[in-house]
Amino acid sequence: MTIFVCVSCRRDLGDGAESFDQPGHGLVEMLQARLRDGGQTGVAVTPVDCLAVCKRPCTVALAGADKWTYLIGDLDPDSHAGEIISAALSFAASENGIVPWRERPASFRKGVIARVPPISVSEAIES
Amino acid sequence: MTIFVCVSCRRDLGDGAESFDQPGHGLVEMLQARLRDGGQTGVAVTPVDCLAVCKRPCTVALAGADKWTYLIGDLDPDSHAGEIISAALSFAASENGIVPWRERPASFRKGVIARVPPISVSEAIES
Repeated sequence: MTIFVCVSCRRDLGDGAESFDQPGHGLVEMLQARLRDGGQTGVAVTPVDCLAVCKRPCTVALAGADKWTYLIGDLDPDSHAGEIISAALSFAASENGIVPWRERPASFRKGVIARVPPISVSEAIES
Repeated sequence: MTIFVCVSCRRDLGDGAESFDQPGHGLVEMLQARLRDGGQTGVAVTPVDCLAVCKRPCTVALAGADKWTYLIGDLDPDSHAGEIISAALSFAASENGIVPWRERPASFRKGVIARVPPISVSEAIES
């Protein structure tokens, strides 16, 4: 499975000078380091130029073959990296990408932006 | 390719009585009828119980093998069915699901909720 991380969205630094950072870059590095340290080789972390959510940085998408895709926003690299990895491992272990509500970290319950069903294999062959 | 249509999201009828309809059902029927009448057999219309957007009915997702997935909201069955089909045909004709901005109907420019890259074939085999 893959954690797509938007590296385009801008986070307002709140200094009134319209300055911003792009926290997705740091989130990618943090997730990759934690997965490496934890020996989790089944989860790829892929930076993406724009998931088109924009107003709710950081945004990530959990995606995998034959699974629902989940888009989650409002994630902070400093406080949510552990929850993102936990949710990704639950997602990877699930049959279809739908993780039971009680197993979802708080940030994933609050931050859901959208979900999309998998394309069926038959359709993938047809198209 | 597939147009996923959320049939769960509720549209407030604005009568102050908290009454609502679920316009996705009508949108599914309308899109299927138009595609059938137009002889467009390469586009499937699939109703989905909840795309988890909720606040911007109707919501649809354009998805296809090896393409970016696009989620679009704020769609009205009565006024946007033609634009949805037009966008779906542009999407189907595109190499990777990314339709040039100038070819996107107004409702798709305004209503974008998110997009997600395709899972690479190599990863699909690996997982």
